[in-house]
Amino acid sequence: RAHEVLDHGFVRVVDYMGDDSAIVQAARVSYGAGTKHVSNDEGLIRYLMRHWHSTPFEMCEIKLHVKLPVFVARQWIRHRTANVNEYSARYSILDREFYIPAPEQLAAQSTINNQGRGETLQGEEAARVLEILKSDAGRAYDHYEQMLSQEGQSGLARELARMNLPANIYTQWYWKVDLHNLFHFLRLRADSHAQYEIRVYADAICKVVADWVPAAYAAFEDYRMGGATLSGKAL
Amino acid sequence: RAHEVLDHGFVRVVDYMGDDSAIVQAARVSYGAGTKHVSNDEGLIRYLMRHWHSTPFEMCEIKLHVKLPVFVARQWIRHRTANVNEYSARYSILDREFYIPAPEQLAAQSTINNQGRGETLQGEEAARVLEILKSDAGRAYDHYEQMLSQEGQSGLARELARMNLPANIYTQWYWKVDLHNLFHFLRLRADSHAQYEIRVYADAICKVVADWVPAAYAAFEDYRMGGATLSGKAL
Amino acid sequence: RAHEVLDHGFVRVVDYMGDDSAIVQAARVSYGAGTKHVSNDEGLIRYLMRHWHSTPFEMCEIKLHVKLPVFVARQWIRHRTANVNEYSARYSILDREFYIPAPEQLAAQSTINNQGRGETLQGEEAARVLEILKSDAGRAYDHYEQMLSQEGQSGLARELARMNLPANIYTQWYWKVDLHNLFHFLRLRADSHAQYEIRVYADAICKVVADWVPAAYAAFEDYRMGGATLSGKAL
Amino acid sequence: RAHEVLDHGFVRVVDYMGDDSAIVQAARVSYGAGTKHVSNDEGLIRYLMRHWHSTPFEMCEIKLHVKLPVFVARQWIRHRTANVNEYSARYSILDREFYIPAPEQLAAQSTINNQGRGETLQGEEAARVLEILKSDAGRAYDHYEQMLSQEGQSGLARELARMNLPANIYTQWYWKVDLHNLFHFLRLRADSHAQYEIRVYADAICKVVADWVPAAYAAFEDYRMGGATLSGKAL
Ligand SMILES: Cc1cc2nc3c(=O)[nH]c(=O)nc-3n(C[C@H](O)[C@H](O)[C@H](O)COP(=O)(O)OP(=O)(O)OC[C@H]3O[C@@H](n4cnc5c(N)ncnc54)[C@H](O)[C@@H]3O)c2cc1C
Ligand SMILES: Cc1cc2nc3c(=O)[nH]c(=O)nc-3n(C[C@H](O)[C@H](O)[C@H](O)COP(=O)(O)OP(=O)(O)OC[C@H]3O[C@@H](n4cnc5c(N)ncnc54)[C@H](O)[C@@H]3O)c2cc1C
Ligand SMILES: Cc1cc2nc3c(=O)[nH]c(=O)nc-3n(C[C@H](O)[C@H](O)[C@H](O)COP(=O)(O)OP(=O)(O)OC[C@H]3O[C@@H](n4cnc5c(N)ncnc54)[C@H](O)[C@@H]3O)c2cc1C
Ligand SMILES: Cc1cc2nc3c(=O)[nH]c(=O)nc-3n(C[C@H](O)[C@H](O)[C@H](O)COP(=O)(O)OP(=O)(O)OC[C@H]3O[C@@H](n4cnc5c(N)ncnc54)[C@H](O)[C@@H]3O)c2cc1C
Repeated sequence: RAHEVLDHGFVRVVDYMGDDSAIVQAARVSYGAGTKHVSNDEGLIRYLMRHWHSTPFEMCEIKLHVKLPVFVARQWIRHRTANVNEYSARYSILDREFYIPAPEQLAAQSTINNQGRGETLQGEEAARVLEILKSDAGRAYDHYEQMLSQEGQSGLARELARMNLPANIYTQWYWKVDLHNLFHFLRLRADSHAQYEIRVYADAICKVVADWVPAAYAAFEDYRMGGATLSGKAL
Repeated sequence: RAHEVLDHGFVRVVDYMGDDSAIVQAARVSYGAGTKHVSNDEGLIRYLMRHWHSTPFEMCEIKLHVKLPVFVARQWIRHRTANVNEYSARYSILDREFYIPAPEQLAAQSTINNQGRGETLQGEEAARVLEILKSDAGRAYDHYEQMLSQEGQSGLARELARMNLPANIYTQWYWKVDLHNLFHFLRLRADSHAQYEIRVYADAICKVVADWVPAAYAAFEDYRMGGATLSGKAL
Repeated sequence: RAHEVLDHGFVRVVDYMGDDSAIVQAARVSYGAGTKHVSNDEGLIRYLMRHWHSTPFEMCEIKLHVKLPVFVARQWIRHRTANVNEYSARYSILDREFYIPAPEQLAAQSTINNQGRGETLQGEEAARVLEILKSDAGRAYDHYEQMLSQEGQSGLARELARMNLPANIYTQWYWKVDLHNLFHFLRLRADSHAQYEIRVYADAICKVVADWVPAAYAAFEDYRMGGATLSGKAL
Repeated sequence: RAHEVLDHGFVRVVDYMGDDSAIVQAARVSYGAGTKHVSNDEGLIRYLMRHWHSTPFEMCEIKLHVKLPVFVARQWIRHRTANVNEYSARYSILDREFYIPAPEQLAAQSTINNQGRGETLQGEEAARVLEILKSDAGRAYDHYEQMLSQEGQSGLARELARMNLPANIYTQWYWKVDLHNLFHFLRLRADSHAQYEIRVYADAICKVVADWVPAAYAAFEDYRMGGATLSGKAL
């Protein structure tokens, strides 16, 4: 079952390995007798999270099938500790599917945060932006098809024609990652500093993870998402 | 000094660590007395390359400043064993610079190779393609500026406005990598299967590397670029 | 079911994700229509292996429980692209189990290969070596227990006492890795240049992999294990 | 110049790339105009550290030559994000150098902390432990030499003979790492939970780093070493 994200995107679980008890199993081999005093699994998982004992979380692995706009993919791929196979626009023709923000997501540049959004655009300005995004996407795709076409002409190579397509076109990939590095991704991308369009993917994955490894997710939420890091000076 | 690549791109060496003798130094600590029979440095480097002893090559590191089209950056970033800081289109406004292929690079889709190029486009077809690429890029950038503009309107957030820009716009980054993984990158990207537009960057880097670590580069060229892998059945 | 290796060691599969068809599935998303001409899965997998398209192999993952002598663990852990949880000698007391080579493995230093073995030791010399290994291991373990003992004394910290134990004592770990990096491990460690004591683990894992992903393993065996790399000069 | 650590060990800087200003340079390319409001370099570096913007710190690299006991090396090598070349006991003969703890480091097992040390051993118990460690090391090394000897016998292969050596023998390696991952190493290993024998190496490296990149080190010390992570529940 796919979790829908944005206007055409999704996150779908393809496969996973391990669960909360696999984390505990690995921790108990590591820490052996040393973990006996932590009697229950949930407590042990919280202990590992609190003390940054991250390797037991690497014992779980998940594989997702994701459909996402290219500008989101460009942020996502910066997380190097994952395995990826992306749809190739050298081999295949991309579909005519573009991300067009919902009106309430059409936000102005923030005046206080250089990398963020401020108020939602209103009225004519909003309409003008939507009109630009839609018509430019449509025209770019028409031109893409015209350049590729082999009717009455040679047809431009796919690997070249795609350079005309804007960054809101959708792509897709298989993305496989271990739970520790997934938590790292979620901490950065489900965070308020992350761009809304990647945050909704992170939020969808948070739900998947909460279902899959409830104890680990609860510990993550408490210590990483909800927590705070204080400097020595602040203390 | 920057090496120019494509119409607006470049590769510039920012810094490096180590040279041919650093590879030898590391190999000699590893292999100790065992390397004495290989009397000269060049011979030892060839020996390491031939036998896939890759860790001594990791002892050299290079940092490049690169300016490149986004669709090239998307291929490049797939090499995870590097350190990257890219210009941010959330924080800053991108420049009006687009890659427009030289006429001799406007190639048709190959009919025999699904991911490759065939003959160069001719006459009217070539002209039409160039015209599309130029005018779509120009219009997209005009619209980008109009959406961002804060004159008489709020101005769309930069992180949203950039989604309208096509994949041939230029970006730039600092890219730092060790020599072993750089050779891996060059083997894949200076290869004839790689897209022309990334290959020219790989070729430029090959020259940089040949200057920097001549013995290692010569061994790489002989065993990796010029070499061949035969299957057991073929043997 | 555990595969026995050496005198007290084993390799046991704990879990895996994916199989031959998961490799194909990932390759087909990447290469899309481009893979249609390779009609069958086995052919596609051979194609990927031959052309070093390694990322689809990263879509499979395996988790092993391994018991192995410390000097073997020291070589194994150098493979960084894996997830590991090892039994801790800070938290727990190690068992009295040491690797004592079988007589036919007691080999002399090779006179032609600085890192290899030559003829099997014979007669008195072999007996003397076995006697040393056994009695030193036994004495070291007795002393380990004496230092740890809290009867009539404080008892030395476990993290200190273990420093007296020789490198043929057994340890154990969970080790999880993707198929591409496992093949890389096997290529280096099932190879004749690898020390016998790690090679037997690699050989046991080869059998596990041949069962798990038969088409991928066959391609690996043909192109990597049985193959040969020729230099440009040799060609 | 080497920094002496433990009885025979050292840490020696072989080379480095970049400094505080290289971090700033990379951050300014990333964040472009966005960083203008942070007027000075030190402030920007503190900002990056506080917000876990770790990639600019990856732009600095350091290469160390380290001599250390094998049981310390076993902990150290678990940090996978580094480049390593270790002295090989297959190729070469190890020196007769063993770590023997200073009397004040001969600690009892902690009764409250399963992985820690308690009170220092006293009097006869301490003397007995030291005597065991010294004589076992000496005997193991004598036997190592006897097994290797080719006088009047074949001589056991080096790769086998070394299995008799205890974990307090010294080894050495070149170790190269970027600054972000070095900070991660230091946070874990200069911490009070780390074993004393690796902590003294981390402490020596802290001094090296404070000299090399003073602003980055000060930020690290304040936010990572001296800081604290609070859970959502605690807040
Ligand atoms: C001609 C060509 C066509 C291509 N077509 C496609 C395509 O259609 N679709 C597509 O998705 N990609 C495609 N690629 C990209 C390709 O799949 C690789 O992503 C890219 O070449 C980088 O190679 P790499 O993974 O070996 O490099 P790096 O990421 O630099 O890795 C080097 C090695 O380090 C190890 N490693 C590094 N990071 C990890 C990690 N997180 N987990 C496990 N091991 C790791 C692996 O052993 C790896 O081989 C293509 C590449 C080429 C050259
Ligand atoms: C709000 C926000 C704003 C951002 N702005 C920018 C920007 O303006 N410019 C920009 O370039 N990026 C930007 N990024 C991306 C950021 O710099 C990271 O690339 C991204 O967050 C991935 O983080 P990571 O490197 O920790 O993850 P991963 O790549 O998954 O790595 C996890 C950890 O593994 C280790 N690691 C993995 N691969 C390597 C390797 N090859 N070498 C060394 N260590 C490795 C490191 O310890 C790393 O921390 C931004 C990210 C966020 C969340
Ligand atoms: C006090 C203490 C006690 C410990 N006790 C034990 C024990 O009992 N048993 C035990 O086994 N270990 C133990 N360890 C070791 C610990 O589990 C880690 O292996 C070690 O601290 C290295 O940390 P790291 O993995 O974060 O570092 P690195 O390997 O340097 O990795 C840094 C980051 O890069 C990414 N990364 C790098 N390589 C990979 C990869 N191949 N796959 C996925 N992500 C990767 C991850 O995000 C990782 O967090 C202990 C460590 C400490 C400090
Ligand atoms: C016969 C033999 C003899 C050997 N002798 C010695 C010796 O004398 N001394 C010695 O020190 N070692 C020795 N080694 C170990 C060898 O140097 C490698 O450490 C080991 O084989 C692991 O190989 P790897 O680095 O390719 O594997 P992995 O660590 O699994 O890495 C796979 C690939 O991923 C990438 N990668 C992963 N992590 C990183 C990272 N942190 N930074 C950059 N790229 C990364 C690289 O592209 C790498 O090739 C020997 C190995 C063999 C097989």
